[in-house]
Amino acid sequence: MTNHNLSIVQIEIIVMRKIILSLATSLDGYIEGPNGEVDWMVFTEDTGKALGKFLDEIDTILYGRVSYEVWGSYIPPETAAPFEKEFYLRTGKMSKYVFSASKTNFLGNPVVVQSEIQQSILAIKQQPGKDIWLYGGAGLITTFVNLDLIDEYRIAVMPIILGSGKPLFADIQKRVKLKLSAANSSDSGFVELRYLRQSD
Amino acid sequence: MTNHNLSIVQIEIIVMRKIILSLATSLDGYIEGPNGEVDWMVFTEDTGKALGKFLDEIDTILYGRVSYEVWGSYIPPETAAPFEKEFYLRTGKMSKYVFSASKTNFLGNPVVVQSEIQQSILAIKQQPGKDIWLYGGAGLITTFVNLDLIDEYRIAVMPIILGSGKPLFADIQKRVKLKLSAANSSDSGFVELRYLRQSD
Repeated sequence: MTNHNLSIVQIEIIVMRKIILSLATSLDGYIEGPNGEVDWMVFTEDTGKALGKFLDEIDTILYGRVSYEVWGSYIPPETAAPFEKEFYLRTGKMSKYVFSASKTNFLGNPVVVQSEIQQSILAIKQQPGKDIWLYGGAGLITTFVNLDLIDEYRIAVMPIILGSGKPLFADIQKRVKLKLSAANSSDSGFVELRYLRQSD
Repeated sequence: MTNHNLSIVQIEIIVMRKIILSLATSLDGYIEGPNGEVDWMVFTEDTGKALGKFLDEIDTILYGRVSYEVWGSYIPPETAAPFEKEFYLRTGKMSKYVFSASKTNFLGNPVVVQSEIQQSILAIKQQPGKDIWLYGGAGLITTFVNLDLIDEYRIAVMPIILGSGKPLFADIQKRVKLKLSAANSSDSGFVELRYLRQSD
């Protein structure tokens, strides 16, 4: 009979927080209509649940200047849908970063990143916490794509061709190859496409 | 006991042939790179099978002038993949229509439609046959979207952001609401999104 000496080795794996770009586009790739319209986005109970689940995954939100000014401290009206109120109640409590070279003071006191975006992002990712939502707008998304800072893309494609508006992807400097990780269609008619970096 | 007089009524339902737009785009909605590149499209055995299945459904192809001149009578080189040879062998035998206001003579003698597109399409759809493939290019697709002639959209979204190129949807005059009918992801990383007219 042999004697087994068992030793238990504890391995700690540090998974870095991901930067997730998550938003809705039309089938022709617009995030807003020509006059800023977002009325074409499907908002159902379905969407509310999906958004709630997404908020469980994150605790930090990244905004461009304009997006923050419009949505960063937004309080929905009394008449808003319950899921919308819930959404802003929850995002209101999260850590917020605004990327702006020109402006340093914002309502609600978000952290302002004026330069050295890559280093700032690395620092944020090394802090403990949940994943990080790259909210937008289009200019900040362009910067993040071109600096290869996006770990995951989640694009909810709405069942409409808008024809014109603000495109999600503009001024992209070179091809970005991606790896499909999921494609989930919702009862309300949109499809969420998820991609990781191809190298991941 | 009652006497039942049964009469059998034969109902013939005529399902009109559908116009199907079927093509591949990048995640940012381009059908070609800035210099006409299509090297980013995923072509695997998988793709070959899907294409073969699609060809079972159609017997007629609609081209714009340029697309026909490049692809309408294309014969792949000896070194081409078997599925590619098979593809052009099969499409070579199908009915072909070229939409061109200026040119009337084409290699392979396709039917040329010079004007009155809506009436021509209605006439084609009323002929018996399988479904009809709207092949492209972008100009013809724009015309068909704006005239509301597309019955089904099948867009294979490839897992890449190209950054620039020729967009699938350009010069669309008004919003087109669609109804998601399927979203099928392939092992090779693309997702085929299928839509019908919202009114269908």
